[in-house]
Amino acid sequence: MVEYTPPYAEYEFLFNEVFDVYDSISGIDHEEFDADFVRMIMEGWGEYCTEVLLPLNEIGDREGLTFKAGEVTMPTGFVDAWKEGVEAGWYAAICKPEHGGMGLPHVFRNAMDEFAISTNMALSVVPALGLGVYDLVTGHGTNELIDHYSANLATGLWCGTMCLTEPHAGTDLGIIRTKAIPQDDGTYRVTGTKIFITAGEHDLSDNIVHMVIAKTPDAPEGTRGISLFLVPKFLPKEWESGGLEGLSQELADARNGISCSGIEHKMGIHASPTCVMNFDDSVGWLIGELNNGMPLMFEMMNRERLATGMMGLGLGEIAYQNSLAWARDRRQGRDLAGVRDPAAAADNILVHPDVRRMLLTAKVNNEGCRALGVWVGMLLDQMHSEDEKVQERAKALIALLTPIVKAHFTDLGCETTSTCMQVMGGAGYCSEFGVEQFYRDVRISKIWEGTNGIQALDLAGRKITQNLGRNLRFLMWPLVEFIEENRDIPEMAEFNKPLHQGVRGLQQLTLLMVSQGMGNPHFLAAGATDYCRYFGNIMLAYMWAKMARVCIQRPDSEFHQAKLASARVFFKRIYPETVALAATIQSGHKHLMEYPEAMM
Amino acid sequence: MVEYTPPYAEYEFLFNEVFDVYDSISGIDHEEFDADFVRMIMEGWGEYCTEVLLPLNEIGDREGLTFKAGEVTMPTGFVDAWKEGVEAGWYAAICKPEHGGMGLPHVFRNAMDEFAISTNMALSVVPALGLGVYDLVTGHGTNELIDHYSANLATGLWCGTMCLTEPHAGTDLGIIRTKAIPQDDGTYRVTGTKIFITAGEHDLSDNIVHMVIAKTPDAPEGTRGISLFLVPKFLPKEWESGGLEGLSQELADARNGISCSGIEHKMGIHASPTCVMNFDDSVGWLIGELNNGMPLMFEMMNRERLATGMMGLGLGEIAYQNSLAWARDRRQGRDLAGVRDPAAAADNILVHPDVRRMLLTAKVNNEGCRALGVWVGMLLDQMHSEDEKVQERAKALIALLTPIVKAHFTDLGCETTSTCMQVMGGAGYCSEFGVEQFYRDVRISKIWEGTNGIQALDLAGRKITQNLGRNLRFLMWPLVEFIEENRDIPEMAEFNKPLHQGVRGLQQLTLLMVSQGMGNPHFLAAGATDYCRYFGNIMLAYMWAKMARVCIQRPDSEFHQAKLASARVFFKRIYPETVALAATIQSGHKHLMEYPEAMM
Repeated sequence: MVEYTPPYAEYEFLFNEVFDVYDSISGIDHEEFDADFVRMIMEGWGEYCTEVLLPLNEIGDREGLTFKAGEVTMPTGFVDAWKEGVEAGWYAAICKPEHGGMGLPHVFRNAMDEFAISTNMALSVVPALGLGVYDLVTGHGTNELIDHYSANLATGLWCGTMCLTEPHAGTDLGIIRTKAIPQDDGTYRVTGTKIFITAGEHDLSDNIVHMVIAKTPDAPEGTRGISLFLVPKFLPKEWESGGLEGLSQELADARNGISCSGIEHKMGIHASPTCVMNFDDSVGWLIGELNNGMPLMFEMMNRERLATGMMGLGLGEIAYQNSLAWARDRRQGRDLAGVRDPAAAADNILVHPDVRRMLLTAKVNNEGCRALGVWVGMLLDQMHSEDEKVQERAKALIALLTPIVKAHFTDLGCETTSTCMQVMGGAGYCSEFGVEQFYRDVRISKIWEGTNGIQALDLAGRKITQNLGRNLRFLMWPLVEFIEENRDIPEMAEFNKPLHQGVRGLQQLTLLMVSQGMGNPHFLAAGATDYCRYFGNIMLAYMWAKMARVCIQRPDSEFHQAKLASARVFFKRIYPETVALAATIQSGHKHLMEYPEAMM
Repeated sequence: MVEYTPPYAEYEFLFNEVFDVYDSISGIDHEEFDADFVRMIMEGWGEYCTEVLLPLNEIGDREGLTFKAGEVTMPTGFVDAWKEGVEAGWYAAICKPEHGGMGLPHVFRNAMDEFAISTNMALSVVPALGLGVYDLVTGHGTNELIDHYSANLATGLWCGTMCLTEPHAGTDLGIIRTKAIPQDDGTYRVTGTKIFITAGEHDLSDNIVHMVIAKTPDAPEGTRGISLFLVPKFLPKEWESGGLEGLSQELADARNGISCSGIEHKMGIHASPTCVMNFDDSVGWLIGELNNGMPLMFEMMNRERLATGMMGLGLGEIAYQNSLAWARDRRQGRDLAGVRDPAAAADNILVHPDVRRMLLTAKVNNEGCRALGVWVGMLLDQMHSEDEKVQERAKALIALLTPIVKAHFTDLGCETTSTCMQVMGGAGYCSEFGVEQFYRDVRISKIWEGTNGIQALDLAGRKITQNLGRNLRFLMWPLVEFIEENRDIPEMAEFNKPLHQGVRGLQQLTLLMVSQGMGNPHFLAAGATDYCRYFGNIMLAYMWAKMARVCIQRPDSEFHQAKLASARVFFKRIYPETVALAATIQSGHKHLMEYPEAMM
């Protein structure tokens, strides 16, 4: 019953009109990606998502996973779908040509992510993890590790995981207990239990390459003593370049000492194995420097956080498409201002202002996030620019925007799927119509890769003051300039004025957070979540004003006029929440911290 | 893993200190219910809920229902639990003594509802429906129907349903197609299909008594042509008082022409059968007058709406209790202001302001709703007062408060379960810890018994202007008086001032809604949801100020000081959303209604 059309036209608008995407990637070794080529790739991927992934989405939810004797079997059809993607080269697209990829820029990959998430969130996580491991190995591994792992990780022939959480240590990784004992041959033996490991075990691929954080026996306390290890499910058959002379022959190609002792039963993403992984004297190789595991892990984590943000958008989009289709068909009641369709027993429910309020809020949330997603994609590419200034700016903005995208997009995604369910009434609650699955699936995105509360603390407690405040200035300079440029354009007033007000508010709130937070970190932490949401609103307001700036020049085009209408919905219906957020941030921490704990 | 303690102390505080519950029921034939007796009843019921219903809740979710050959089998243990409740007389408590009940006042029944919802929402719906049918039969049935049905409905030996929705008609009941053909013997033959019928078929009871809305052949168009019929699963064996002479002997005690052709697969309340019911020339009896079915149906519906509101509270409460217990145990990170527990590897997460923000928001939402629930319960009793003034005021206030309680409590319940899940991180998303079930179960409460959008329209478009505005005046008089009384009490300023501001805002917004709405109903409908939420905030602010008024007099008591702390959390963290709501209400309807439909 579920329908889905990839939002190609939306992306073309953003790539070509709102942002100068093709210009932005020139000079970053991506000249071959012109609009025609990108359209072809996007449509090919869209077809794969719609025709291969989407039909499996409900099957995966209903059937779930089978766990037996340490092995996880994916739901019917998943292995074939995965292999089809691997063989077509889809999963390698963003990787280097020497590893079988096509060097696709991040900005397009981000867009393609949206389609995969919409059509099969559970499966879409697997390539994201594989690519995270690919980046770590190619960026920080020895040449031998790169040779052995990069190509197979790139294509998806082998999959990857990120093993951080332990039963007693989730947010607080400083207290992990997994140990890594150095061996004479240069390898390590890793022992410990990791939980909540997505795709820790499954039958999609021949090998699974785990990135495990652990501590060596004499490591410093806390996170400064964490190192990162590559621990493969199957040990290498042969070690071509001689870097592993010590690995005795009997271990070659053998199963490493890793076992999956169970999978979690979860509210959603039933087709995504969440595993308890036991590392028992497993052979592992150090990635990067000893005791430098946290920054490396965060390289991967930050990329996953942006991908997680896109989950909010992807599920928000497919929920919207289905509830809109429902609303177009469903006839209940009459337009309060007068019967619209006298021939029928009732008008369709789009005549009701409250139904429009719900659908348009959903639509506008999606459109705003998509625009910001494109900008973030561009910045990810620019982080690799040869122009140092471009690179510096991109890195600073990505640092700042990562927690906002992760937290705000996923908060909105949860709200949007709920709103779309509400549009459909009782049908929305029934499995038959799909939206309830999206509502369950998207909920994890607020939790994993660092809860949204952690994102907010990262933003308020670290990112805004990082680099002596340069992160923030890289954002504020062009933003203030944009506001200034549009000040005298009458058609822009309805968008530019509230943006201006909001930005002023953000500056004041930032000052408050920083100044109060220095004296009392509780103040900063108590306001962090609301501050992050305020900031998210400002970013979306900026995106909407940018889009409006383009669209006021196209009075003839239905598409562009609808985008202006969307911008209005944003500023009138969604953006006013900033006023309330400013008040709660200012209310401080005392009423929270002075609450008698025993009486909670 | 799930734990639960009925909030007895909270109710004692509300019954005895905040409201004068025992005074309010005197003169309504309830003198025997003194505090000791009520405590005994509450504790007995609490024990039944905790020991019998709670252990089945997760089983019901996991096992679900079996549908086979038109019959629905309840999950393991449900039939026994139900029978135990019936035999103990629990379900009849509120009914008249002559029907096996004890005439328990509504105010206590409302409180007891909360416990049942917390411990087993799926099952808690069954007695609510049965009592709704009981009220309709005893209030509007012939003596013969009363004699035959009331006692069995009261005790729960027989169950009841409300059959409204049809595949094409949910919100819009004016277009139903179910027909009722009058027979010479005074009965009707009912034919049609009803969907989303909760407890339409199951094995809990020997008989199921359906309240069905249908149209007679010559009925007027729309809702003015709807009549209400009692249609039992099994026809009466003997009709004692001769009112049914025409019913031929071969039909007696026979299965009526009713079949269940399927049950829905839903996101939650897996142990609650949601049935497609086919009425095929079924024998039915008219309840009340011909073509007067809607007001009668609404009598039952309004009671169910209040009960649905309590679902938001019940699930919010058990979610809170479990996430609090988790937070007390869970150790992650350190207090930002300095290590609290140096002996442990980490402090418990209650030291983190953002965790407190989440837990306290949840707690305070629950406490505020509970207070308003008690007031509503008192008003339900006062609707039966012999003092006509008391009765009139109670009816007006119930009319006004019903949509607010239904919509606002369930909105908050969905938010609270989500917040509590967030506190627990990944564990919150795993079935093992229970909260994810509450998150799924509570979501239906925003949809059924009239979606929350419909509640908002009922409030804004009907209830505030009904009785020439008397509904609203019955609320405003004491509210304004309360504000006046507290104006000069310094300790009340932090609560009384924002309440005063909010009430002024409500008056202005109400004027705006009514004046603009007269000219353009789209304006009113576009703002209705936000208006309802604004109103909900005012009601909870009123409750908090009332509670604070009591607590400032008890500086020595930990309990009362914690309530003052709760009141502060409400006014500082939750209440400020009213500022944003005022803005969105004022933003009107144009940006919604002018959005080009084809471009949605």
